Amino acid sequence: MTLSTPGRYLHALQARTPLVHCITNFVAMNSSANILLAIGASPAMLHAREEVSEFVPLAGALSINIGTVSPAWADAMLDATRTAHQTATPWVLDPVAVGATTYRQHLCAELMAHRPSLIRGNASEILCLNGIANSGRGADSTAHTEQARDAAVALARRQGCLVGVSGEIDLITDGQRIVQVRGGHALMPRITTLGCGLSATAAAFLAVADDAPSSQLTATAAAFGCFALAGERAAANATGPGSFIAPFLDALYQLTDHDLDTHLALETCDAF
Amino acid sequence: MTLSTPGRYLHALQARTPLVHCITNFVAMNSSANILLAIGASPAMLHAREEVSEFVPLAGALSINIGTVSPAWADAMLDATRTAHQTATPWVLDPVAVGATTYRQHLCAELMAHRPSLIRGNASEILCLNGIANSGRGADSTAHTEQARDAAVALARRQGCLVGVSGEIDLITDGQRIVQVRGGHALMPRITTLGCGLSATAAAFLAVADDAPSSQLTATAAAFGCFALAGERAAANATGPGSFIAPFLDALYQLTDHDLDTHLALETCDAF
Amino acid sequence: MTLSTPGRYLHALQARTPLVHCITNFVAMNSSANILLAIGASPAMLHAREEVSEFVPLAGALSINIGTVSPAWADAMLDATRTAHQTATPWVLDPVAVGATTYRQHLCAELMAHRPSLIRGNASEILCLNGIANSGRGADSTAHTEQARDAAVALARRQGCLVGVSGEIDLITDGQRIVQVRGGHALMPRITTLGCGLSATAAAFLAVADDAPSSQLTATAAAFGCFALAGERAAANATGPGSFIAPFLDALYQLTDHDLDTHLALETCDAF
Repeated sequence: MTLSTPGRYLHALQARTPLVHCITNFVAMNSSANILLAIGASPAMLHAREEVSEFVPLAGALSINIGTVSPAWADAMLDATRTAHQTATPWVLDPVAVGATTYRQHLCAELMAHRPSLIRGNASEILCLNGIANSGRGADSTAHTEQARDAAVALARRQGCLVGVSGEIDLITDGQRIVQVRGGHALMPRITTLGCGLSATAAAFLAVADDAPSSQLTATAAAFGCFALAGERAAANATGPGSFIAPFLDALYQLTDHDLDTHLALETCDAF
Repeated sequence: MTLSTPGRYLHALQARTPLVHCITNFVAMNSSANILLAIGASPAMLHAREEVSEFVPLAGALSINIGTVSPAWADAMLDATRTAHQTATPWVLDPVAVGATTYRQHLCAELMAHRPSLIRGNASEILCLNGIANSGRGADSTAHTEQARDAAVALARRQGCLVGVSGEIDLITDGQRIVQVRGGHALMPRITTLGCGLSATAAAFLAVADDAPSSQLTATAAAFGCFALAGERAAANATGPGSFIAPFLDALYQLTDHDLDTHLALETCDAF
Repeated sequence: MTLSTPGRYLHALQARTPLVHCITNFVAMNSSANILLAIGASPAMLHAREEVSEFVPLAGALSINIGTVSPAWADAMLDATRTAHQTATPWVLDPVAVGATTYRQHLCAELMAHRPSLIRGNASEILCLNGIANSGRGADSTAHTEQARDAAVALARRQGCLVGVSGEIDLITDGQRIVQVRGGHALMPRITTLGCGLSATAAAFLAVADDAPSSQLTATAAAFGCFALAGERAAANATGPGSFIAPFLDALYQLTDHDLDTHLALETCDAF
């Protein structure tokens, strides 16, 4: 396996403009759509149970985010993820604030039965999903990425999927290997829904990966890498969270496969 | 008929601050509200069936966008458009991604029975609405404006309304005449919900037009023209989609009737 | 009572990062989340009836905004505010466009029975809530702050809560005293949902105030003061509403307790 050329997935994404079906939260909808458009994907936000099962097979990937979920949305998420599983459409679960309420925990358990390709969260969320701890409050993590390392590996093995943990240093694991992504900036947690946008972006990258585990791991790392690089570049001239947003979208838009291959240091190790 | 003075509609809009009732998608809500405020209108987003019929008569125009529709919202859209038809309130239909699912096609058929003043979409959407083809995927068009020309004219005649098609060159038709609007910028499709914002803006312009067909055609062309001019100006210094958004709102805010009359080249021809 | 040191509440907010549970409108969700993050609070947007009563006690404060309300959301708002009342969690009511429909008036009456800590609106909304007049249309005020002065005092006394009126000059009253906050900029009404964001910010400040009336009054004035100062600073270089937004978030992010204590002139008088 090589993780040395994540750029090829950005190249493929820009060439193929994958359609990414998002059932996401109200806070993230606009920013996730703009992030997907900037990186080169085509977003589609729709959630009516009357149509999601018809739409999922048209999409290259599905991104599910429970941030502002309610029963009608949960039903649509379950229909959509069932269809994604049946049609082998890659899908991403973003378990926002799963530690906060039992409602979220039950829903995530049901969704995980439909076999996500990737679960992406912060350390608190991944710890909660793995049943180790319930330390989350709201959408912001109170745990560090490193604390979630074992939980991420265990969750990836049990679920047979990728798990990505966002933090100061991101980690992505398939249960056998762990990839670390460095970059980003301390301002990023002060801008809402960047994590949600990363989940949607990872879905876009999975839409252009093939079925091999190393392909999916590298494609996911490429998505995290785009955020790490674009975040660094955007923060270079930012004077606060407001002035970060526009250059972040610009940086995503300007990223090339060469940028990723040259500037992104992916550190890989065994999970044991 | 003269289309030589679209500026008078911008002048009227800025003087009268029309209240525009929007039942639109979750992705577009914030950006459409900011676009309406920038151009000089007063947005109102509300969708509860318990109140839309009471509110529509207070508004100068209604803008309906099916992007993230679900049954409860569809019911409210049907109530609101029925009231708009009964009270002669101008209303705009934005049939987002109508080609994607049968659910959307049925809903649009029901909505069109309430006689929209204007249907605004991209080429794929207008082709689908006219029953010629179903080539759309998501909210992004896969067809060119020119391909939708005949469909737009046919749809306008059958519905007895205006049809506007957004694209590299926009066209607006009442079934008898076709107005072409040039301008904008290639970056614009990389920013989400600008089309939705244009539909809402067209509603604001229709709120200050009179009943004469030529008035409504020119007012609609003025709305498209505002986006074309503001898009050009915003793109002049943009380095990507992120840095386009703020100057686009500023440009809408700064537009004058004189700008429209001087810089907007409306090309008109017969539809035959 | 002294209002001379509003900065201590900003200091406390930045130190404690209060979790603010928002049940707000779709237009405001993203901008309110970014505003709360910029000022130093932690936003949580969730509204499912299945979880709000479990979540409210985890939060430092609750912010309720009826902008795009519908029956399911109204039920959740009632559950959440009932829980807030029972658990002595401070909560803010933002009665968007209450004058527009009877549906909104009935809902606000029900919500007020759960004893908000603060009602924040524009002059039209406060006049309507006090039953004096119903002059509102949409979310924009058609009345001036000064006209709502008596209504605000009367409402504060009847409800036993704080009332804040946004306008060219803001006023906040506990029914006994009136605090005036000067600042801001004429551009601010041209950007959507700043008022909604102020309500959420006031909730964050109330989360770090103590139970004494003067503490709550000063903390609320500090929230208004942050918007007044940040608005002035952001407008200094803005060329329209688009270029206001990013520097406004940056200015909120950069505000210090010293800024508030030095630059904010709070004028206090008796309400009689």
